Amino acid sequence: MRHNFGAGPCILPQEVFKQASRAVLDFKDGLSILEISHRTPEFEGVVEEATKLVKELLNVPSGYSVLFLQGGASLQFAMVPMNLLPEGKTAAYLETGVWANKAIKEVKFFGKANIVASSKESNYTFIPKDYAIPEDSAYFHCTSNNTIYGTEMFTLPVTKVPVVCDMSSDIMSRVIDVSKYDLIYAGAQKNIGPAGLTIVIVKDEILGKTGRGIPSMLDYKVHIEGGSMYNTPPVFSIYVAMLNLNWLKSKGGVAEIEQENKAKAQALYTEIDRNPLFKGTCAVEDRSRMNVCFVMENPELEKSFAKFADDNGFEGLKGHRSVGGFRASMYNALPITSVHALIDLMQTFEEDYNKKNN
Amino acid sequence: MRHNFGAGPCILPQEVFKQASRAVLDFKDGLSILEISHRTPEFEGVVEEATKLVKELLNVPSGYSVLFLQGGASLQFAMVPMNLLPEGKTAAYLETGVWANKAIKEVKFFGKANIVASSKESNYTFIPKDYAIPEDSAYFHCTSNNTIYGTEMFTLPVTKVPVVCDMSSDIMSRVIDVSKYDLIYAGAQKNIGPAGLTIVIVKDEILGKTGRGIPSMLDYKVHIEGGSMYNTPPVFSIYVAMLNLNWLKSKGGVAEIEQENKAKAQALYTEIDRNPLFKGTCAVEDRSRMNVCFVMENPELEKSFAKFADDNGFEGLKGHRSVGGFRASMYNALPITSVHALIDLMQTFEEDYNKKNN
Repeated sequence: MRHNFGAGPCILPQEVFKQASRAVLDFKDGLSILEISHRTPEFEGVVEEATKLVKELLNVPSGYSVLFLQGGASLQFAMVPMNLLPEGKTAAYLETGVWANKAIKEVKFFGKANIVASSKESNYTFIPKDYAIPEDSAYFHCTSNNTIYGTEMFTLPVTKVPVVCDMSSDIMSRVIDVSKYDLIYAGAQKNIGPAGLTIVIVKDEILGKTGRGIPSMLDYKVHIEGGSMYNTPPVFSIYVAMLNLNWLKSKGGVAEIEQENKAKAQALYTEIDRNPLFKGTCAVEDRSRMNVCFVMENPELEKSFAKFADDNGFEGLKGHRSVGGFRASMYNALPITSVHALIDLMQTFEEDYNKKNN
Repeated sequence: MRHNFGAGPCILPQEVFKQASRAVLDFKDGLSILEISHRTPEFEGVVEEATKLVKELLNVPSGYSVLFLQGGASLQFAMVPMNLLPEGKTAAYLETGVWANKAIKEVKFFGKANIVASSKESNYTFIPKDYAIPEDSAYFHCTSNNTIYGTEMFTLPVTKVPVVCDMSSDIMSRVIDVSKYDLIYAGAQKNIGPAGLTIVIVKDEILGKTGRGIPSMLDYKVHIEGGSMYNTPPVFSIYVAMLNLNWLKSKGGVAEIEQENKAKAQALYTEIDRNPLFKGTCAVEDRSRMNVCFVMENPELEKSFAKFADDNGFEGLKGHRSVGGFRASMYNALPITSVHALIDLMQTFEEDYNKKNN
């Protein structure tokens, strides 16, 4: 039995793997999903269903478009200012981690980034709370979940400025009010599907206002007009995303999975706080439900706990080098049984440690 | 028995589908290829092997980098001038079809496109031959194979200007001398692998000379430095490309497949020229080996031939709406038996027609 706590690309439901595996051999009339035209009615149906599922699962209001693109969140770091920031104007950015920082760096090609608050000095261990967003900002950009540091932003600041959010690592994990956002983007490879796909949810009325000429593939409006098929889309990744979103729907949707995610996170944080060998790395009120970061009170024990985890079938628990220690990523598809197994592992390790040291 | 003559995404070898299908269930230690980190040694090995295979199969000289990117050829239409065309300068473009035309349209955001020759007036039925490329052009851009019109460019003009080529639909189908090109790009979904992947082969020394600031994800140099892993790559598409390129190598490589492709094309064109019911649509000397376009002498028969093909398990034979008639795409993985089956179909249709009309 393996437990995949990897940070992404990450675990997806086993039944999605089974369906995807079958479609690679036979999607339609003996043809593989890898050899069919994206212009076949069958695949057009897949894109339609995937779009409908995103709208349904997140309760997307009218006036918003859902896009399936390529290039990951990293390409969005540039596409956002290219499409939303008029030449020489300023956008407000909240700096909560390395990915927010990367987003900020791409702004300079199009205008200016104003960092309204940052937790960089404390190695991003918390989400800044009290900051002002200048009303003349072209937009406010934030990162809802910080994979590397294990922090999550559960409340949005009140602002009249358009809100743009990188939700790569917590989209579909909890109920959000899409109407509070003007643009949401997310690399698919956590709770949506395989790598090679990016989801964008954009309020149509905010587009086309920069006065800047935008190359076709980088223009949201072109993709909206093309129904995510301006050019050949990433067929297989969209297909698997559709399967995965269908799985989420069958589980009861986002509200239901949020309860599971809360239960998983609570169980693991409770153990981290209880177990004297371990401790969390970030502000308790900002603890992410998706990525649980922890270290050991005695760093010298980390190597042997890592080996113990490895020997017992745990995957992807190594913390990011900038935080160290461990990171348990617990995306939608990670079963709570894997979380309980990890807790058991920590308790067994503690008992063994106590036996040896008493 | 189905025969997949689709124009792309297109047929890949059956054994590639089988291997890919298995990896979706179990790539490594029971984990799916869809749930592993791109930073695992196993996947880093995949990228390394895929890169090595491209270099080996195309005999790429030193001084060139091979990149696995996203966004398709359509994103390259913008990335090429962004990376190679200094502000206000001019690049020379050969207009041989709709895709060349789309590439030309993206230049305006960065400089000027000079169309050195075009076959647009004759609906792109031939490849222009006699044209001059001004020596002060930043580069010369051409499209080696025109999927929609069934023309292919078998010789390059002699020029001192850097040569950029969109090889989306004939890369890996015939031996090329990479040293004659400065940048080659190709959407993967013909002879390389599934949709959602783009290959770029670029001579390192031509980069970094525009003086323009380039967003990270659109900068070839960033991807070279990142070894195609600046951000999360399209893991599954790269994996399947590696399988497919390995299949090509096991078949004897590009020189060997070129002979097969020549035999397939010759067989079908011979039948088109012989069979009084059919005729080719473009200049004989420019006929593509990848996409064979043909119509019927009597257009009223096309509907019934289309139905006859459909009833007999032929997929993807419908011609593009701008040419009409039929298009038989015969990429590397299409077995010659499928070509023979199509020829038989055309002959049976002819016999039936003759019986009814004599």
